[in-house]
Order: sequence, then structure tokens, then C-alpha cells
Amino acid sequence: MISLEQARGIVRAALAAGNEAEMKPLSVIVLDAGGHVLAFEREDGAAPGRFEIAMGKAYGAVMLGMAGTAQMARAEAQAYFIGAANGAYGGRLIPVPGGILVRDATGAVIGAVGVTGDTSDNDAIAGKAGIESVGLTAEI
Amino acid sequence: MISLEQARGIVRAALAAGNEAEMKPLSVIVLDAGGHVLAFEREDGAAPGRFEIAMGKAYGAVMLGMAGTAQMARAEAQAYFIGAANGAYGGRLIPVPGGILVRDATGAVIGAVGVTGDTSDNDAIAGKAGIESVGLTAEI
Amino acid sequence: MISLEQARGIVRAALAAGNEAEMKPLSVIVLDAGGHVLAFEREDGAAPGRFEIAMGKAYGAVMLGMAGTAQMARAEAQAYFIGAANGAYGGRLIPVPGGILVRDATGAVIGAVGVTGDTSDNDAIAGKAGIESVGLTAEI
Amino acid sequence: MISLEQARGIVRAALAAGNEAEMKPLSVIVLDAGGHVLAFEREDGAAPGRFEIAMGKAYGAVMLGMAGTAQMARAEAQAYFIGAANGAYGGRLIPVPGGILVRDATGAVIGAVGVTGDTSDNDAIAGKAGIESVGLTAEI
Repeated sequence: MISLEQARGIVRAALAAGNEAEMKPLSVIVLDAGGHVLAFEREDGAAPGRFEIAMGKAYGAVMLGMAGTAQMARAEAQAYFIGAANGAYGGRLIPVPGGILVRDATGAVIGAVGVTGDTSDNDAIAGKAGIESVGLTAEI
Repeated sequence: MISLEQARGIVRAALAAGNEAEMKPLSVIVLDAGGHVLAFEREDGAAPGRFEIAMGKAYGAVMLGMAGTAQMARAEAQAYFIGAANGAYGGRLIPVPGGILVRDATGAVIGAVGVTGDTSDNDAIAGKAGIESVGLTAEI
Repeated sequence: MISLEQARGIVRAALAAGNEAEMKPLSVIVLDAGGHVLAFEREDGAAPGRFEIAMGKAYGAVMLGMAGTAQMARAEAQAYFIGAANGAYGGRLIPVPGGILVRDATGAVIGAVGVTGDTSDNDAIAGKAGIESVGLTAEI
Repeated sequence: MISLEQARGIVRAALAAGNEAEMKPLSVIVLDAGGHVLAFEREDGAAPGRFEIAMGKAYGAVMLGMAGTAQMARAEAQAYFIGAANGAYGGRLIPVPGGILVRDATGAVIGAVGVTGDTSDNDAIAGKAGIESVGLTAEI
């Protein structure tokens, strides 16, 4: 289980990592193991629709148990599968890097993080930094 | 415009007000003037679906320009109007106290706060405390 | 058929009537005989969600061939009928005054106007003024 | 913030630009920074469903902070990403030219314009003319 204190730590460290690397304004979401929102922040200057993108990245990761990088590989290999999965989840998936699984010390998935605002790869780097800052394991 | 720093301040002060008054675990959302999410936090122990309730309270307030207390009064006087407005907004309204308009010094609506977890009246008290902690005006 | 020139005239005259009577900021929509948008304007200071309310008032009028006042009477007499009709139209009705049928000289319905922002009765007064300003007949 | 007076000016100048270049009948929408409708007009002779197309072009631009030309490039490079983003926004994106970001003198996005009716490129030309006619900056 990700506590609110941990979720806050993840959000802050991810935003700090983005700022340090001079990324564009980021938005960061933390979901629990059921895909429900624990915490979210959108930096000043980010577009208004960033919540939905961050949510879609993290939601797909936790619901499929598959991080954004793996989802993108699957979408490129077999677009209709990811398209169909997206339909099954009500159109809520965003299958690209920046959707990151969060694992505890036993390897269990305890939630997911979604980051959006810069390139998908940079989004994933910032999210990983956030997760590791609170001693948890990130699978991008 | 509500900055991320102000949004964080609102969330933290609302949660602190709830804790001090020994309310149940709260969830707090801050929306911009267009109804889009700026920040959200859900306290440990809160039910997983609290994001949607907080969102619905704040979303209706900003979209209708009418705080939760006024929405509830209208729902009690003319239930089908609020029901129909809810349909027009895709079923996203929660027309009870805890949806709070945020006004700047000129009186303009610059966003809304949604609080859920305790009684609706207590939710509104906590949200008002959060908004006032950053020098903005709350209409509950 | 309502021309764009007529639709513009309706919007402008409805807003002018509201301003003259010191109503709150209004939003005015003009739909064609198929319920599709011809023109819309939202005054400065109106809440962001006013399009959906104006649309719902006018859409229900033209789709049911029943103006807002008659819809409200039906909703008060038989709430489940209006509720069910609303479901059939995807939740898009707002069954209160301010949804106004537009008739030509032969009595045929050629569109509808929706006004929102002040009391429902005032909304209807402003909309009627708009419609009559271009020589068409209003049924509120 | 785009005032109603500016929004009207944008709509009129965009329609005038289309007429002067002998484009097909155009429809023009102006959205605020939260993606909510400020003004819309559909020229005589345009198809009834033009509101939804104009809306989709402008809505995607403002929600993603990305104009139609950039959305189209992304859709051509990574179709499933734009498809997925569309799902996250409830199917409301139209990712082609004619969705135009409106920036103020500081460079901040203060809304978006959507134009439809002629070719996508011509739609964008007419919208840009509209935006520039009121002294604002267009990103097509």
C-alpha cells in the first residue's frame, strides 16, 4: 500500500527531477493498487488536460500489470490488442512511457505513477526518480 | 489563476483542519476556473472512490458558478433541474456542501475546491479553512 | 430555416434585453430545426458551463416540440416522463423556461433558442425579445 | 482571457477571410482556456454537424496545449497515442489543422479557435486571420 506521505514524496521528487533536467512543466499522478487516485499535481504552465493523460498512463499500467514501455511495444506489434483493451477499460488507457508500475520490497505491485508534459521517455525518467526517492521500485 | 503553490496550500490546510477537528479521513481536490484538476490528495483510510466525489462537488460549483450549498437548495426546491443539469454535464455533479467556489480579491471565480469524507457540512468547513489559509475567498 | 443573419440578430437582441433589464450575464444559443447549433455567445462573467445549460434548454424544446414552460409543467406533473425522455436523448434536456420554440409566419417550428444566466423566467423574457427582434414568433 | 468582444471579432474576421478566398461555408468556434465555448457561428449552407467538428479541433488544441498541425504530425507518427488521448477526452478530439491555439502577448494560451468547412489547411488560414484581426497570436 502506498501511503499519502509516500505519494506526496513521489510527486514532489518527480517534479523536482523534471525541473532539474529543465523539462517542460510536468503533471504527476499516483494511483493505488486498484487504479484509484491517491495524489495529483499539475505544474504552472501545463495544459489543462494533463490530468486525463497522466491518469491514462498510470491506469493502464496498474490495470494491465504492464508498464508504459511494454504497452507501447505491444501497441506497435499488435495495435488491435491494445485498442481492444482500451475499449474494455472505457477508453482510459494511454499506452506510452510515463506509466510506471510501483513495486514494494517483495515485488508486489502496490500502485502506479503517471507522468506527462515532456517527451514520453523524459516523463518516465522523472517518474522513476520520484518512486525511488521513497524507497520503492519502479518498472517503466 | 490558482498557482500550484496555492493549490498545495489549500489541500494541506484543509486536511489539517479536518485532523484538528477529528474528522474522518478527507480527500481534497482543487480545480482551475475551467474545471480541470490542479491538485488532489486522499488521506490514508479514505475509501478508494473519493476522487470522483470530490471532483463532482468542485466540478459542479465551477461549471454552474454555484457553490454546493446553493446547489443543494436548488435540488431540494426543484430536483429535476439539478438532475437535468447533471445529465448535461455527463453525470459529473455532486450537488451538496463541500463544493466550494474560490474567488480572488476582485470577486472573480478562479477555481473550486471539493472536499469529501466527513459530513457534507464538515467537508465544507475544512475546505473553507484551506482556501482562506492562502488568502483567497471561499463561497461554500 | 433560420439564417445566420437572423441567428446573430436573435443572440444580440436577447443579450441587449438582458443588459437593459440588468439581468446577470447571459448565454444564448440558436439551434436549427434538427437541434444543431447555428450560433452561440456567452457574456463576460458567465460561468464556464453555460453552453451545456443553454443547449439543453433549446435542444429539449426542438426535439420534443415543446417549449421550456410546458416541459417544466410536465416535469412537475409527471417527473418520470421527463426523466425518461431525458434518458432517450442522452441526458441532454434541461426542462425549464429559457428553452424557446421559434416559429415562422406559417406556424412551423424552424428552430429553438436557449437562454441561461438569470432566473429561468427572465431567461425566457430575454430570449423572446431576441426572437421577436427578427420578426419571428416565440413560444416560451 | 478572451472577451466576448474579441471572440466575436475572431468569428467575423475568420468568416470574412473564408468568403474573400471563396472557401466553402465555414463554421467557427472560440473556446476559453478551459475548453468551454465562448462563441460559435455556422454559415448558411454548412452541414448540420459542423459544431462538433469545430469543437473537436479547438478542444484538442487547448486540452493538450498542441495545435492541430502538431496533433496531425503526432497522429501520423504514432496513431495509437492520439487515438488513446482521444479516448481519455471522451472521443472529443479532431486532430487536424483548423484547431488553433490563441496566445496573448506574454505567450500564454488563453483559448483556442476551431474552423471547419473547407480543406483543413484553408480552415487554419481563415482561423489565423480571425485571431490576428483582434491582435492576438495564432499557433496553427
